[in-house]
Amino acid sequence: MIYENVEIGKNSSIGEYVVIEKGVIIGDNVTIGHHVVIKEDTVIGDNVKIGSLISLGKRPTTNKKMARKPVSTLAPLKIGHNVTIGDHVVLYRGVMLADDVYIGDLASIREKTIVGEASIVGRSATVENNTVIGKRVTIQTGSYVTADMTIEDDVFIGPCVSSSNDKYMGEGNYRHQGPIIKKGAKIGNNVTLLPGVEIGEEAVVGAGAVVTKRIHSNTTCVGNPAKTLRK
Amino acid sequence: MIYENVEIGKNSSIGEYVVIEKGVIIGDNVTIGHHVVIKEDTVIGDNVKIGSLISLGKRPTTNKKMARKPVSTLAPLKIGHNVTIGDHVVLYRGVMLADDVYIGDLASIREKTIVGEASIVGRSATVENNTVIGKRVTIQTGSYVTADMTIEDDVFIGPCVSSSNDKYMGEGNYRHQGPIIKKGAKIGNNVTLLPGVEIGEEAVVGAGAVVTKRIHSNTTCVGNPAKTLRK
Amino acid sequence: MIYENVEIGKNSSIGEYVVIEKGVIIGDNVTIGHHVVIKEDTVIGDNVKIGSLISLGKRPTTNKKMARKPVSTLAPLKIGHNVTIGDHVVLYRGVMLADDVYIGDLASIREKTIVGEASIVGRSATVENNTVIGKRVTIQTGSYVTADMTIEDDVFIGPCVSSSNDKYMGEGNYRHQGPIIKKGAKIGNNVTLLPGVEIGEEAVVGAGAVVTKRIHSNTTCVGNPAKTLRK
Repeated sequence: MIYENVEIGKNSSIGEYVVIEKGVIIGDNVTIGHHVVIKEDTVIGDNVKIGSLISLGKRPTTNKKMARKPVSTLAPLKIGHNVTIGDHVVLYRGVMLADDVYIGDLASIREKTIVGEASIVGRSATVENNTVIGKRVTIQTGSYVTADMTIEDDVFIGPCVSSSNDKYMGEGNYRHQGPIIKKGAKIGNNVTLLPGVEIGEEAVVGAGAVVTKRIHSNTTCVGNPAKTLRK
Repeated sequence: MIYENVEIGKNSSIGEYVVIEKGVIIGDNVTIGHHVVIKEDTVIGDNVKIGSLISLGKRPTTNKKMARKPVSTLAPLKIGHNVTIGDHVVLYRGVMLADDVYIGDLASIREKTIVGEASIVGRSATVENNTVIGKRVTIQTGSYVTADMTIEDDVFIGPCVSSSNDKYMGEGNYRHQGPIIKKGAKIGNNVTLLPGVEIGEEAVVGAGAVVTKRIHSNTTCVGNPAKTLRK
Repeated sequence: MIYENVEIGKNSSIGEYVVIEKGVIIGDNVTIGHHVVIKEDTVIGDNVKIGSLISLGKRPTTNKKMARKPVSTLAPLKIGHNVTIGDHVVLYRGVMLADDVYIGDLASIREKTIVGEASIVGRSATVENNTVIGKRVTIQTGSYVTADMTIEDDVFIGPCVSSSNDKYMGEGNYRHQGPIIKKGAKIGNNVTLLPGVEIGEEAVVGAGAVVTKRIHSNTTCVGNPAKTLRK
């Protein structure tokens, strides 16, 4: 079912039972699998590969208990050139994927988030809103990137890493601040990052560490709570 | 494809490629996205918002290695008024969602589970069977709520929290018991809860803690294993 | 939409909006739900139960930042007899599921992976490529099985367990080696396994432990880093 005012480029193919809503623009040489939903005004670049059973351009929703209400105006979802999107992915309206980005199966990314050039968001990874992810970043399978988080270029986040942004755990409208991961830092699998912690440039956080305060550049930390190893 | 004996209320809208099986009852002002499967006898209240690519009212399945067999009779899935359901959600037959509940994308909830009024089950969260979740509870993204667990009113569970209910890890048919989280307790991100532990009222469990025994009311604990902080 | 050259056995049923590509072979007494995608050449045994909104036989994809490129030739996905597959599952081409395997909702398994007889891959669990899972293994909800990992027969992996295979976290083309879990070992919930660690036969790893080196057979370890308990 393709709605009116949809533009589809040259040599692009669309699978079965796909829904493309009005105003969608699709580039050249794009392949779209089966059972894909593309919501209104989504823009897709050239040479993009989209799997099956996917939701693109979803609008945020809320309920009465949630502290933050969804913003009423959001730019349409924009997908750059040469992007690859796995099966069962959910990308919200207000997301911007730069060229050569890779999104694994069952991953989801909320509104007002930018993913930089050639970065990878692994399978079943979840990225919240208002987050900036740099270039050539790897976020491995099952990791959780909280809202209001900054991930600079060339960062490596192993599998099943957990972050948080709410120091008072739901108490009210305090300012939320996710972790800040500086350029080239490496985070091991199943690491826990507390709200607002900074991980310095080229720092290494060992697998399973619980990071409760700032980690300096070019240091390595391990443990619960994480402590810096002597050189 | 809408089967026979389906009731749909006033001003309700249904997307493309939706399957609604026999005996389903849908209230007024309900919106249903695309590629949604609603299994037989499911009951949906008024003003419910349902996303796309969703499975509602699934019957439990099993294999020959599983200790517990699915119960043969289960009440139909019941969804209250003003509920919001994200994309790629799976809700089993035998689930009851009270009014104003919010279920995030890619979440799943098994049979014989009740979610209380205005509670939130976050994106990619997983809730097992025979669990009771109170009112105004927040279960954040990626958390795992095991079977036979009790979560009282106003509990806050951060992202990526893990719980378990099987002290002997698959040895046999011992009685399974999940954690008991008392009213108003707060659990930080990536906390590990062992089978049957009780978290007291208004207690706080720090991020990354591993809780191996009872935590008293109004105390704070951190670490692996979790120890109570002096006041 | 059923393509040409598809074989479907006796008493098998297929839901609505299903896509079955060319060369697929489906056995007898198979039930397939709605919105299922079955890619070319997939082979499905007898008495298999397949849910809804599922992707079977997906080919691997990549982007320019990824170290390892997908192999160009892969055997078709092969699903044994009496297998049960939950909703929203993704199984890649090159996967082999033995008889009586159970795959939970929202789970995904990558190429060149074998799952042995009667084993369980839980809901939202993720299994990477080049991994061998033995017989009667339980991998519980939300666990992450990395690439190049070996799980022997009768192993129990609790919920939310995390493993890794890349000692240098994305630095380059070093040899990757996932953990080796020997026969009958038990891993508690939210355990962290570092690259290449061996867990001995019948060993027990307590919930929340961070395993940084070899654990001997018939021992129990807990903590961060994990230490062996005296008997």
